Amino acid sequence: MNGRMVIHLIAKMLGAEAALLLVPALVSLIYGETQVALWFVFTSVLTFLIFALFGIKAPKKRKIYAKEGMVIVCIVWIMWSLFGALPAFLSGAIPNYLNAFFETISGFTTTGSTIIENMSEIPKGIMFWRSMTHWIGGMGVLMFVMLINTLDKSSTMHLMRAEVPGPEIEKLVPKARQTAQILYGIYLGLSLILCVLLMLCGMDFYDSLIHTFSTAGTGGFSNYSASIGYFNSPQIEWVLMIFMALFGVNFNLFFLLLLKQYKPVFKNEELRTYFGIIGVATVLVTINILRVYPKPGMAIRQAAFQVVSIITTTGFATVDYNAWPVFSHYILLALMFIGACASSTGGGVKIPRILIMFKSLKKQLKEMVHPQSVNIIKVNGKKMSSTTVNGVHTYFMAYLLVMITSLILVALDNYDFGTTFSAVLTTLNNTGPGIGHIKPDGTFADFSSLSKVVLCIDMLVGRLEIFPFLMLFTASAWGRKF
Amino acid sequence: MNGRMVIHLIAKMLGAEAALLLVPALVSLIYGETQVALWFVFTSVLTFLIFALFGIKAPKKRKIYAKEGMVIVCIVWIMWSLFGALPAFLSGAIPNYLNAFFETISGFTTTGSTIIENMSEIPKGIMFWRSMTHWIGGMGVLMFVMLINTLDKSSTMHLMRAEVPGPEIEKLVPKARQTAQILYGIYLGLSLILCVLLMLCGMDFYDSLIHTFSTAGTGGFSNYSASIGYFNSPQIEWVLMIFMALFGVNFNLFFLLLLKQYKPVFKNEELRTYFGIIGVATVLVTINILRVYPKPGMAIRQAAFQVVSIITTTGFATVDYNAWPVFSHYILLALMFIGACASSTGGGVKIPRILIMFKSLKKQLKEMVHPQSVNIIKVNGKKMSSTTVNGVHTYFMAYLLVMITSLILVALDNYDFGTTFSAVLTTLNNTGPGIGHIKPDGTFADFSSLSKVVLCIDMLVGRLEIFPFLMLFTASAWGRKF
Repeated sequence: MNGRMVIHLIAKMLGAEAALLLVPALVSLIYGETQVALWFVFTSVLTFLIFALFGIKAPKKRKIYAKEGMVIVCIVWIMWSLFGALPAFLSGAIPNYLNAFFETISGFTTTGSTIIENMSEIPKGIMFWRSMTHWIGGMGVLMFVMLINTLDKSSTMHLMRAEVPGPEIEKLVPKARQTAQILYGIYLGLSLILCVLLMLCGMDFYDSLIHTFSTAGTGGFSNYSASIGYFNSPQIEWVLMIFMALFGVNFNLFFLLLLKQYKPVFKNEELRTYFGIIGVATVLVTINILRVYPKPGMAIRQAAFQVVSIITTTGFATVDYNAWPVFSHYILLALMFIGACASSTGGGVKIPRILIMFKSLKKQLKEMVHPQSVNIIKVNGKKMSSTTVNGVHTYFMAYLLVMITSLILVALDNYDFGTTFSAVLTTLNNTGPGIGHIKPDGTFADFSSLSKVVLCIDMLVGRLEIFPFLMLFTASAWGRKF
Repeated sequence: MNGRMVIHLIAKMLGAEAALLLVPALVSLIYGETQVALWFVFTSVLTFLIFALFGIKAPKKRKIYAKEGMVIVCIVWIMWSLFGALPAFLSGAIPNYLNAFFETISGFTTTGSTIIENMSEIPKGIMFWRSMTHWIGGMGVLMFVMLINTLDKSSTMHLMRAEVPGPEIEKLVPKARQTAQILYGIYLGLSLILCVLLMLCGMDFYDSLIHTFSTAGTGGFSNYSASIGYFNSPQIEWVLMIFMALFGVNFNLFFLLLLKQYKPVFKNEELRTYFGIIGVATVLVTINILRVYPKPGMAIRQAAFQVVSIITTTGFATVDYNAWPVFSHYILLALMFIGACASSTGGGVKIPRILIMFKSLKKQLKEMVHPQSVNIIKVNGKKMSSTTVNGVHTYFMAYLLVMITSLILVALDNYDFGTTFSAVLTTLNNTGPGIGHIKPDGTFADFSSLSKVVLCIDMLVGRLEIFPFLMLFTASAWGRKF
């Protein structure tokens, strides 16, 4: 383990957070929340000091390997949340530090589960930072660092592999740094368009920014308890629906569109599956909730909004779907599990893993009949290596393991079955709301400290796709030898 | 597809059922239920006729392959249940044929989920057959046929592979037929001892037989709605607890004990894990339910009984555990999922698959750090082939897929979240009772026909360990080429 380089890179990342914290400080000042602004500046100075001590001068031995990559990524997310929670805690907006940490890691991991019971009591600067963490977390904190830092090629890949969502890394251009720049460009561009559209639909600038951040990161924090239902505006709902769906698409496809390569985009297996699932789920939920709403058009809109919001793991709500029949609940939970495309800002298991799952089953059946036959698994026409396929297989098992362990621990709170189950599923898939006690306008505030810690870990585990986190607990990650 | 041989073997198996049906006919006669006895004889004659037409003269081409093996196994279980349900239906004991079929397939698959609302109204002969199906299903219908039929060596292995529970086939002696005989001998011996012990504890002969059948097959049908709670006898509970645990042990270990090879049994990894899980789960549940019971001793007994009953997927109950905290529910659901040892009569995912799951995760973590390293997965000190490990991986994915699909379909009935979830989990793992509406003294009678069909399929899928059933739906299983 190259401990010096690990500390150096983590400190460097805290330097980035120091800079980012100045934005909500400014917002606080604009809204006259001087005290809050000072706490943001205080936290910024604190993180900057760590950066100044360890993050400026790189150690001589700069080479890092997969092990270090995973450890760094894990610790950075935890440190960002630990420090990012300070302003809300110190300003008294969220007087319980664990709650403040929960809210912040829920932000960075783009989950959107909240412990805030009364949104209107929270200062504007804090609410702004809360949604901004979604936007930062959406593209991954380490993608960000690649803009400001250059490691050697293989070291960068180790960081990317631990950080970028999906079963395989695809590089758009030979240089990882350039890839990151292109992706950030697309992310920024789409965010700008969305923000303008929301303002055209009647939102004020502050609300537009908040909801742009939450949509782009597929996070789901809103500054209203009723979420998008607060605006009661079909236009806003349609705009958000379209942009949630777009931010759930593999960003590499946007790059192809920029290069005017329309055909491979149109034929993309992942994209077709993604929109296919959205279509089928919308039809099923619409039929199931027809009798809940006076007009069929209303049922379609509500169904489509929830389906898109959940499969992209955003978690915005327009209605309390607890009033819907249980069938719709199970459809929504299945969508949570499936999640969005790889290399998007969405969470969940992700479409390519679902595709590889189905193809592995087909392969297994074929090989049970013809043990000698050779069957290759392809996704998007590209042959999947046995390492990738194996990684997907173990991913599902690790997922089950984490889920069952979390369920048993959270069950100690003695909430009803559905609340317990959906609390784990919604955090593990970085979605946000659940059913029962944690319905869209409910909160996680009443869970015990143990459950909150477990659910925080689930958010991190979900965002980092399990293995980097498990790595932290292998003794060998810390020794010199495996 | 060797269609003639498939039909021949299925007909042969129906011949075996014809003979077995004469036992409950006799029981009915003893209890003066002449009409019921006649319906048993009628069904016996019906199945015998099919046997006489197709099952006596074997076709010239006798060779069968893996494909045929799986198709035969699947269809035999369905046919046995379709015919086995006739006496209950025709005699009017269960006036709805789907319900009668549900009850019978629940019997043969050793699930133990029931649709009977008033046990005391059902004739004794029907109740006897109901539990007897557990005993028959416990060791597998095809193990039975090997006693009466000889195929060539590889054909027999294809049937065994489709039928015997666990990730790998272990043969005790070179000949499969002899292996089957040894296993049946052990099964019969243990059953006899249990029956005598139950009578010594005060059960009458009829009740002893019924509960011996249900324990040996790890099925769980009782002729009382209160299940084992009816007897209110600590002795009976301890005897059943010990024998449930024994029938959940890998039968190959009993064979080793007969050969006086104590050391490999004592050191067996699967066995140690199995009892380890039982021990830990009992402690956790005991602590969790301490305040529910006046005396700690009572809490320990109830906890141990439920833990053993659920991990072996028997499903006997001494209390309504719905009154227990939600934590205990989740522990019991996790045990349902884990299940018993391979080559036992128990269901669930089974201990060796759980072991391979953990070892695969460890291997994955190691290989993420050192991509070039070679890591071998061993269970019980034996190297697992990549085919076996891959089979386990795809098993978990297939399990998830079947579970999610079933959940969505059963959710259409709009039962509460816990009832829906546990209905699918308890049938898929061949356990029996669940939580909520299907608590130990509840029934599945109120589910819709669609849900009943889905749950029947889940029972079959669980008992045959998923792939043989999935095979039925691949077009290629029916064509000549894949």
